[in-house]
Parts: sequence; C-alpha cells; structure tokens
Amino acid sequence: MGKALIIGAGGVASVVVHKCVQVPDVFEEICIASRTKSKCDALKEKLDGGRTKIQTAQVDADNVDELVELINSFKPDIVINVALPYQDLTIMDACLATGVHYLDTANYEPLDTAKFEYKWQWAYREKFEEAGLTAILGCGFDPGVTGVFSAYAQKHYFDEIQTIDIVDANAGDHGYPFATNFNPEINIREITANGRYWENGEFIETPPLSEKRVYDLPEIGPKDVYLLYHEELESLAQNIKGIKKIRFWMTFSEKYLTHLRVLENVGMTSIEPINFEGQEIVPLQFLKAVLPDPASLGPRTKGKTNIGCIFQGVKDGEEKTYYVYNVSDHQECYREVGSQAISYTTGVPAMIGAMLLLKGEWKKPGVYNVEEFNPDPFMEALNEYGLPWQEDFNPELID
Amino acid sequence: MGKALIIGAGGVASVVVHKCVQVPDVFEEICIASRTKSKCDALKEKLDGGRTKIQTAQVDADNVDELVELINSFKPDIVINVALPYQDLTIMDACLATGVHYLDTANYEPLDTAKFEYKWQWAYREKFEEAGLTAILGCGFDPGVTGVFSAYAQKHYFDEIQTIDIVDANAGDHGYPFATNFNPEINIREITANGRYWENGEFIETPPLSEKRVYDLPEIGPKDVYLLYHEELESLAQNIKGIKKIRFWMTFSEKYLTHLRVLENVGMTSIEPINFEGQEIVPLQFLKAVLPDPASLGPRTKGKTNIGCIFQGVKDGEEKTYYVYNVSDHQECYREVGSQAISYTTGVPAMIGAMLLLKGEWKKPGVYNVEEFNPDPFMEALNEYGLPWQEDFNPELID
Repeated sequence: MGKALIIGAGGVASVVVHKCVQVPDVFEEICIASRTKSKCDALKEKLDGGRTKIQTAQVDADNVDELVELINSFKPDIVINVALPYQDLTIMDACLATGVHYLDTANYEPLDTAKFEYKWQWAYREKFEEAGLTAILGCGFDPGVTGVFSAYAQKHYFDEIQTIDIVDANAGDHGYPFATNFNPEINIREITANGRYWENGEFIETPPLSEKRVYDLPEIGPKDVYLLYHEELESLAQNIKGIKKIRFWMTFSEKYLTHLRVLENVGMTSIEPINFEGQEIVPLQFLKAVLPDPASLGPRTKGKTNIGCIFQGVKDGEEKTYYVYNVSDHQECYREVGSQAISYTTGVPAMIGAMLLLKGEWKKPGVYNVEEFNPDPFMEALNEYGLPWQEDFNPELID
Repeated sequence: MGKALIIGAGGVASVVVHKCVQVPDVFEEICIASRTKSKCDALKEKLDGGRTKIQTAQVDADNVDELVELINSFKPDIVINVALPYQDLTIMDACLATGVHYLDTANYEPLDTAKFEYKWQWAYREKFEEAGLTAILGCGFDPGVTGVFSAYAQKHYFDEIQTIDIVDANAGDHGYPFATNFNPEINIREITANGRYWENGEFIETPPLSEKRVYDLPEIGPKDVYLLYHEELESLAQNIKGIKKIRFWMTFSEKYLTHLRVLENVGMTSIEPINFEGQEIVPLQFLKAVLPDPASLGPRTKGKTNIGCIFQGVKDGEEKTYYVYNVSDHQECYREVGSQAISYTTGVPAMIGAMLLLKGEWKKPGVYNVEEFNPDPFMEALNEYGLPWQEDFNPELID
C-alpha cells in the first residue's frame, strides 16, 4: 500500500519498525534513518526477511536540505518522526517541501527552553492544508491514545464531557534501588516543575508535586499519583467541547522521589561543573556514569503499566462516568519487540496512526491532534496490535 | 608546672591547645607538632601572647625515631596524642623510649582493619609500669568522660551498678540538607556495621541499626537513638565490677540515614573506582568533593549536644537510678575556641586528663582507662573548664 520513512533509531523507533513489519500489506517499504546509520542497520538486520522491504539511511534531522534529499530519493508516502522533539519543525518543513504526510509522537520543544507547547506546530496548519497534506501530532500513548480515548468517549458515551483525569502509572520494577529510564536531568525537571491543569477556561499552576492522590489502578493496585502538566492538556482543552477540567496524574513511588531529592540535595544532579582534582566535572554526568545504564533496564524490568482516562459528564441528561485504559506488561513487550512497555506503548500508536493515514481513514489536509480524527478504527487497531483496552463504567473518581 | 607535647593539628588538637593556654600555671610550655607544621604555626599565632610559651614542630607520628628526636629536644613531661588512632602505638613506643607520660582520646586501630580494640594498647601495661610512666587511654568524651561518669556513679551512688546506657546525641544543625563532620566513609561504616552490647559477661551482636529507641534528652528533646558498638564498652565491662549490661546509643536523624542510604544505593559511597571518560575515579572521592567542606560547618552549626550515662543498680539494698550528662552548645563552643561542640567535648577532657597527670592526681605507673582513676577532681574540672554536668536521680530508662 505505501512507503514510510521512519526517522530515529532509539527505543520507540525500534518498536515502530517492529510493528510496521507486522503489517506488510500497509508498510510495503520502509526506510529507517538517523544520525547514526549503524543503529539503523542493526535494526534492519533483526527484522529483515519479512515481506516489508527495509532500507536504511544516514540523516541529520536538524538539516532540512538533507531531509529533503533523503525524502526525494526514497519517495515515502509518510514520514514517521520518532527522532528528538527539537527536530519536529525541520522535518515538517521537509515534508512540505516534498509533498509527504507527517506524523510524530511528541510536540516541538525549542532546545533553549523547557516549555512544550503546540503553538509552533499549529502555526503550520494552513501550509499543510494548502499542500493537501496531513500532519498528525502527538500520536504516541500520552499524548496520543489518551486523545483517541477522549474522542471515543465523546463519540459514544457522552453528550458533554465535563472532566478528564488522565492517569499514567508505571509499576515496573528493574530490581535496582534506583535507576532512570532516561536522562536523570529530565526526571529532576519533571518533579521540580510546577504542576498545571485546565479548569474553567484557563490553566492553573500548582507547586511541584503538591497535588497527590492515591489511586487504585486495575491490575496494578493503589499507587501515589501526582498532578503534572502534560502536553495533551493543551489540545484536549481546545478540542473537547464544553470541557471544564482536565488533569494529568503520574505515579512516582516514595522511594523514587526520595532518591531524586537526596541526589539533588547533595548536588549530584547539578549541571554546574565542579573542580575535582584539577579537572572540571559535571556532577550529573558523573552520576549518570555511576547509575545503571538505561539500556540494561529493558530485559530486567518486570511489572505493568496502566495508562488511561477517567471521564465525568452527561449523557441524555444523566450524570455519567467512564474509564478506559490499557494495561501493558513490561516483559511481554520485551519478548515481542525487545523493548519494555514505556517504548512499546509509544511506538505502537505511532504505527497505527501512520497505518490509518496510509489507508485513507485518517487523511485530511492540515495539522491535527489525534482527538480530531474518527477514533473507531484506531480503537480497533489498538486491540489488534498489542494495546488492548478495557472499560469501567463505574470507576473510582479522583477528587 | 610542666611541659606538654601536643601531637596533631586538627579540630580536637586546636581545642586542646586553646584550653591548655587557659591554665598557664599547669601548662607552662607546650609544643604543637604535626606532619604539616604550617597548621601548627597557624594555631600558635592565634594563641600567642598568654603566659604559656608555645612552640611548633614538624613530625611524622608514624615514625618512632622522629618522635624520639622531637621529645628529646623539647623534653615534655607528657605527650597528648590527638593525632590519628593509627599512630597510638608509635607514640607510646616513643614515650617509653624517652621516659615521658602519655595520653590519648581514641584507641589504637590498625590501618588495615575496621576493628577497634584495646588489646594492642593494654599489651603495654607492664612496660609502662616498669618504666614508672602513666599512660591514660581514651580521655575524650566518649570514651573518656563516660568512664569518669561511671567511676563517679560507682564511687558515690551505688554499691553495684547493674546497667549502663551511654546516650550520645548531637542535635546540631549546619543548615545543609546533608553534610558530614568527617569522612563519609566512616559514617557509612558506622551505620552499616553490626551493633554490639555487653550482657552477662559477653558481647552480643545486633544487625545494623536494628535496635532503635526514642529518648527524650534534656535540653534537646526526643530523638531517635540507635544501638552501636563503641570502644568504652570494652573497658567498662572489665572495670565496673558486677556490671550486667552496657549499651551505647547514638542519635541519627531519619533524614541523615536516608541520605546516607540513598548515596550508598546509587553507588556514590563506593571506594571501587569507576571509569569516567577514560579516567578512573573513586565515587566516594567525588562525593566528598561535591559535599560541603567539613571545615565550613563549624561556624554555621547551631544547636546542642547531650552526652551522658544512665545507670541502674543497687545502693544499701535499694534499687537506684542515676543519669549524669553534659549539654554543650555548638555556637558557644565555636565562640570560645573556634571549634564546634564535637571537637570541644573531645578536646577539653584531654586537657583535663593531662592537667591531672601533671598535678600528680592521676599519676600511676601503667596503662589505664579513665574509669580506673579517682573521678572527683576530673568532675570538678569539667565544671570549671567548660563541660558542666547535670544530674537526674529519676531519669527515663531505656528498655
């Protein structure tokens, strides 16, 4: 049916590639491209032999000319961007220049600020519309499936959704006293940044980790969840008509927070170099060297994730609640695609979004967030491609 | 009256020197000697101008010949050893070779083991006796004053002491989230080593920090106290006749323990070098470089210490309890001698022990722990020289 250029060669890209080759009628040809071609070649080597033809390429995704050249040479129908969020705009520019559809999983974030917002990408709406091209933004799990869940709830169960609580729980255990899945600097930022939620038409800030609840998650059990800002709040606030309140909750264990706080207290997370025996060393860099290699966590992580949305609203004049969620098992994900659930839950929806676009079901000229498309074929595909969802019409609510 | 050679130039040595010059009739001349003469000179400069004559010298306290040469040149009546515990034996050897009395504040500890025991120093008993010389061991606060307190209780209040609980509380606050007064490696060892206490003629081991109580300390309030091994248990078990049980308790805050445990968990307290950008770096060394300089803590430490002994026993056929303790204030100590209470409470008793020896009140040929001398003049001197004690005849007991 079509050709996809996948930019990126990290954990999520690996999942996307694994899943694309499971649907060779849709993804007849793919090209895996990243700054380090050897990583793409390693991926290709693992997956060659199926019906999908795989090629690889070297590309600097910061460079529009290089991207245009690669696209013109491979001639894909869609670019699946699972590179760094800093590179969204250069890749969108290259898609416009070459007439190719676009999909990503995380919104653009300028390198020099810590602020993620859709405004830079939404500014491309007219350009994509005029070019007759579709750009699908934030098509991972959260953002991504959380938007699809919201559109599905809206379509089938509510006349008006009043509140959405997104709950993202990772109950994985890697067996180390402390390790981070990714850059500890980002983890620190997550827990030291102000929270933010949408209520009655505006965003309200809360002190870092000040809003805490205990939520009893299906298949996981009761966990501490903390209110954070997350990028889908911005688009859902605009796209779910009549919405009064949207909050995002993430689990952090007391142990995890204690470790991060202590390391911050003693200065080990600082990015200011200190003088050590006549040499300038950044404490955070040294900490990374002491901590377990994030790449070593995959095979040893046990337990499950549970990500879902709890809705409150009105249907036929009656109060109504609805909870839809996916539970993924780290070890099952690892067995299937060689990545644990964090990457899996992000990569599978990216493949599904690209598939629906190629099939024409999610094709409409412009720049869109996922909740602006028909959720039904996506919900079906989640069940088919490894992220089955479950429903609860009488869920515990978060006060 | 006499001349004292003070070996060491650290925090405790500084206190000893400050206090000696307050008693110029006893300490007519002192010599401050250490590996780094400039430190001794700096001390001398601060204190010159009183009636005590001060000189300084460079000496390697590991080297008996160097020590003998220095002693023969200065001709002291006593050597006050406030150098490293590894150097007790070389200094005792030099004292024997030159016919000079000896006093220290911490028992000998071989460099290659973590075990402190009196056996190495007690082996010098006959030699000192035959030479007509006095060696006073462990004359700081604990060991030291805790032994004097025990002898005093025995002499004045009990026919038989059955139990002693030594409680060492430091409620000082330096205002940092975490810092160590000394080597973090030693702190780690303290909290990860088994506890040990004396009961019915033998030592009983307990898992690290497994014995915890809350004790309400005068002028400090309720604190978590943990059972540890401490060196005076060995000598008190031998010297307090009829004793059934001796325990040592030290305060650690939950915050302090959490910081140490996290740093241990992530590997930052390891002494195994790791490869960092092609270079071998010991994590503990790097941690030390990140933590506040221990020397910076003195001027900013507020709050008090409380160290004392709780006795239970029998007098005239009646059950009796007795608690004697000293409370010191970090800032008052710092104002008086430029060191906070940890060094102050160790240095003052060393000066007092040396003074009593020079006055002939604590002079008897042989090697002795402090509880083997008459406690009365020492108790008087504590009140006079900055470590006043208080008594409670109805103290809270530790179960």
